[in-house]
Amino acid sequence: MAKEEKQKPKTNIVKPSLPQGTRDFGPEIVRKRQYILQSIQSVFELYGFQPLETPAMEQLETLMGKYGEEGDKLIFKVLNNGLDHPAKEVTAREGFEKLLSGKNVKELTERALKYDLTIPFARFIAMNHGVLVMPFKRYQIQPVWRADRPQKGRYREFYQCDADVAGSRSLINEAEFISIYQEVFFKLNIQGCEIRINSRKILSALAEQCGGQHQLTPITIAIDKLDKIGPDKVKEELLQRGLSSDQIDTIEKYLSLTGSNNEKLIALKTLLPSSSQAGEGIEEIEYLLQVNEKMRSSNDRSTLLVDLTLARGLNYYTGVIFEVKAPSTVTIGSIGGGGRYDDLTGTFGVEGIPGAGISFGVDRIYDVMEELQLFPDSVEVGSKVLFFNLGAAEILASFSLAKELRKKGIACELFHEQAKFDKQFKYAEKKNIPYVVIIGSTELEENICTVKNIKTGKQDKIGFAELGDFLVKA
Amino acid sequence: MAKEEKQKPKTNIVKPSLPQGTRDFGPEIVRKRQYILQSIQSVFELYGFQPLETPAMEQLETLMGKYGEEGDKLIFKVLNNGLDHPAKEVTAREGFEKLLSGKNVKELTERALKYDLTIPFARFIAMNHGVLVMPFKRYQIQPVWRADRPQKGRYREFYQCDADVAGSRSLINEAEFISIYQEVFFKLNIQGCEIRINSRKILSALAEQCGGQHQLTPITIAIDKLDKIGPDKVKEELLQRGLSSDQIDTIEKYLSLTGSNNEKLIALKTLLPSSSQAGEGIEEIEYLLQVNEKMRSSNDRSTLLVDLTLARGLNYYTGVIFEVKAPSTVTIGSIGGGGRYDDLTGTFGVEGIPGAGISFGVDRIYDVMEELQLFPDSVEVGSKVLFFNLGAAEILASFSLAKELRKKGIACELFHEQAKFDKQFKYAEKKNIPYVVIIGSTELEENICTVKNIKTGKQDKIGFAELGDFLVKA
Repeated sequence: MAKEEKQKPKTNIVKPSLPQGTRDFGPEIVRKRQYILQSIQSVFELYGFQPLETPAMEQLETLMGKYGEEGDKLIFKVLNNGLDHPAKEVTAREGFEKLLSGKNVKELTERALKYDLTIPFARFIAMNHGVLVMPFKRYQIQPVWRADRPQKGRYREFYQCDADVAGSRSLINEAEFISIYQEVFFKLNIQGCEIRINSRKILSALAEQCGGQHQLTPITIAIDKLDKIGPDKVKEELLQRGLSSDQIDTIEKYLSLTGSNNEKLIALKTLLPSSSQAGEGIEEIEYLLQVNEKMRSSNDRSTLLVDLTLARGLNYYTGVIFEVKAPSTVTIGSIGGGGRYDDLTGTFGVEGIPGAGISFGVDRIYDVMEELQLFPDSVEVGSKVLFFNLGAAEILASFSLAKELRKKGIACELFHEQAKFDKQFKYAEKKNIPYVVIIGSTELEENICTVKNIKTGKQDKIGFAELGDFLVKA
Repeated sequence: MAKEEKQKPKTNIVKPSLPQGTRDFGPEIVRKRQYILQSIQSVFELYGFQPLETPAMEQLETLMGKYGEEGDKLIFKVLNNGLDHPAKEVTAREGFEKLLSGKNVKELTERALKYDLTIPFARFIAMNHGVLVMPFKRYQIQPVWRADRPQKGRYREFYQCDADVAGSRSLINEAEFISIYQEVFFKLNIQGCEIRINSRKILSALAEQCGGQHQLTPITIAIDKLDKIGPDKVKEELLQRGLSSDQIDTIEKYLSLTGSNNEKLIALKTLLPSSSQAGEGIEEIEYLLQVNEKMRSSNDRSTLLVDLTLARGLNYYTGVIFEVKAPSTVTIGSIGGGGRYDDLTGTFGVEGIPGAGISFGVDRIYDVMEELQLFPDSVEVGSKVLFFNLGAAEILASFSLAKELRKKGIACELFHEQAKFDKQFKYAEKKNIPYVVIIGSTELEENICTVKNIKTGKQDKIGFAELGDFLVKA
């Protein structure tokens, strides 16, 4: 390690820093994140989902206009290279003027960092649907970028973790998504999650009841805010959006339906009696409840809850919608969501491909697991063994022994230089390495070594030939 | 799958495409890439290296000036957001004028995509060296971006896969790097790789012999091209760079030293007799050969070769250098490289931290394995079982059976809709799913199912309760 006095900062050296809203992940954090991601991935695989990876950069035109006006502004655009080339100067100048007026800027930038995994997935399907086996079930675990104002829990670069099926209208998909959520949270040992479901068909029927389909967007936007602003402010907002007090009454009744899942659905049938849309939505939810009841095992630690106040702001959902709430013992909120959409690729000129999907909020799941101390100790383990370095001949023997251990799957290190015991012990302690193997000149002559368990202090003399078996069991 | 006639391309819809030089990785390719990356990662872990992840974006100033003038031009810069905001217009305009004259453009862009993994690693060490346990051994497997002209085998987004140790001058690190190379290629079943080593100290001694240290750069650049342009052109280039014919004679002798590893080193001692630098370099290589001899097992399938013509263009190497050549049966060339450097973080104002590292060329290793057909069949397997869908009641039973299978680690799918046998068989065939489970109304009554092996055509009647055990063994 560099001593302080050795550092003579040169002039013009800027103290290095990270871009706002981005993070380095050191070993411990990577391991914990990998534990979450691999758990989710293994469940996706068990359900027949296959991996897909798309590039970080997409054509700017692939992304623009897909996330609303606000979204467009949050897309990170990548500068075209070679702009200082004289031939490009004129067009670049035009592009820059456009940029300043908030317009398309192809002359300056043609590429952008992906903003989510859904549009790249849709782009992939639109380009390849002719050769893919449909339904195409894919999962995708990759970073995305958003130029949002960074704040606690909100980053400019973060992972999304999605599973979607394209090319199927079957409710079997929704049933399996619910099951995937349950298995993942079981695997991660997160107890007490609520998987909430509703249907855009029901919300759509509610909008009909309140004057027509044009009311759907204002109603979903308002309902979506219920958690944050409370029922009174929702009413206020609906008034401002021009709904009559009769209509608002209906919505109020709808939002206050309570009871068990079945009680809610029965009450709903009374509230929206004549709507075939509502009927469809209710039937679908009933089917999912039935499958869930059938598949439920004593292992499952999450509940499936009909939540009629669930709206999910995104306009492209058309059927069942999901949202997962973290256990109520932590105040972390939503840790996943998704739903069914009718049209995945229409925006790319390929119609008739419906789909459904879910996602996991990895950063928030990480926070839940930290807060509830759910990461198993084994996640953080690096090397199991440190070979002490007590001289050139001794370390030479360690090379071969270490190789044998590694063949048996035991991670180990050789201390990099001959040093005092104390220094080598400290290294092992700081790195949480549980065993040290000591080979001095006497040991070397006798082909034995001393194995010390750092925690218990217990020491054993072990023959070279037995070291592997001893440490596999240790 | 959408029928062709269903597609009515709307006006204004641009056919979606990928940015030049970038790739989608579909399921088969992701699985094969993961196989390579996980093999390498597991070996890194066995040697005590720990994972690190840094963001895709770095501050522009962290990257600029680190890769030479040519490199700077290949850095992808990210546009600052909110440039169309009136308050920012003036500074943006200044930035743009600078951009056109090829200067720093902070007003227009402050962030860039990382160009390699070494500078971000150095930046991380410079920011955190006070709290890290040194030596710090990290591996990093992440994409990097370069605005190179795309061509066969060269992409604008590609993965790098590096292991480095910071804060240690010990040769033990180099010895372990050689061992890591050997174990990875053994694990991937790539036979006949050559791990070539040389030392910048030897090259430096050669430069001394040829007139001084100022000759080191022209000599290494010329030698580096030996493979591509041949010895005559190298001589020509050295002449042009102002070396005398005596000096070129020495270099020619140096380049033509042949024989076994030891013979080469002995001849080298005669050629550069009085140089203490050469002596050190030779001694270090001898040590690595000795350790390698000691650790070698009959399993090892790569050779360690002293290659005095190895130079590695990068100026920051100062000691032992590595390069791995793919088996001579494929014409793919270098699939890895690295070396020792004296100063990792000086450019960030933190001095006294030396290091060494190696990297694996993932894309090229992929090509080697494809060409030699080395991917095991198991890599490509997705789901093992498809449950046929022969009706609502039948599929309801399948949900629970599938859940049981998944508990046993068997990936399976339910066909998404009731359909003819033929259609469901075709889906299984196209997706390479080896077993189908058929539950019709008769089977459902009797709590049994028919399991069919698609390849052999063999059918078995299995009770629901025995299905899991049957398929685990199948």
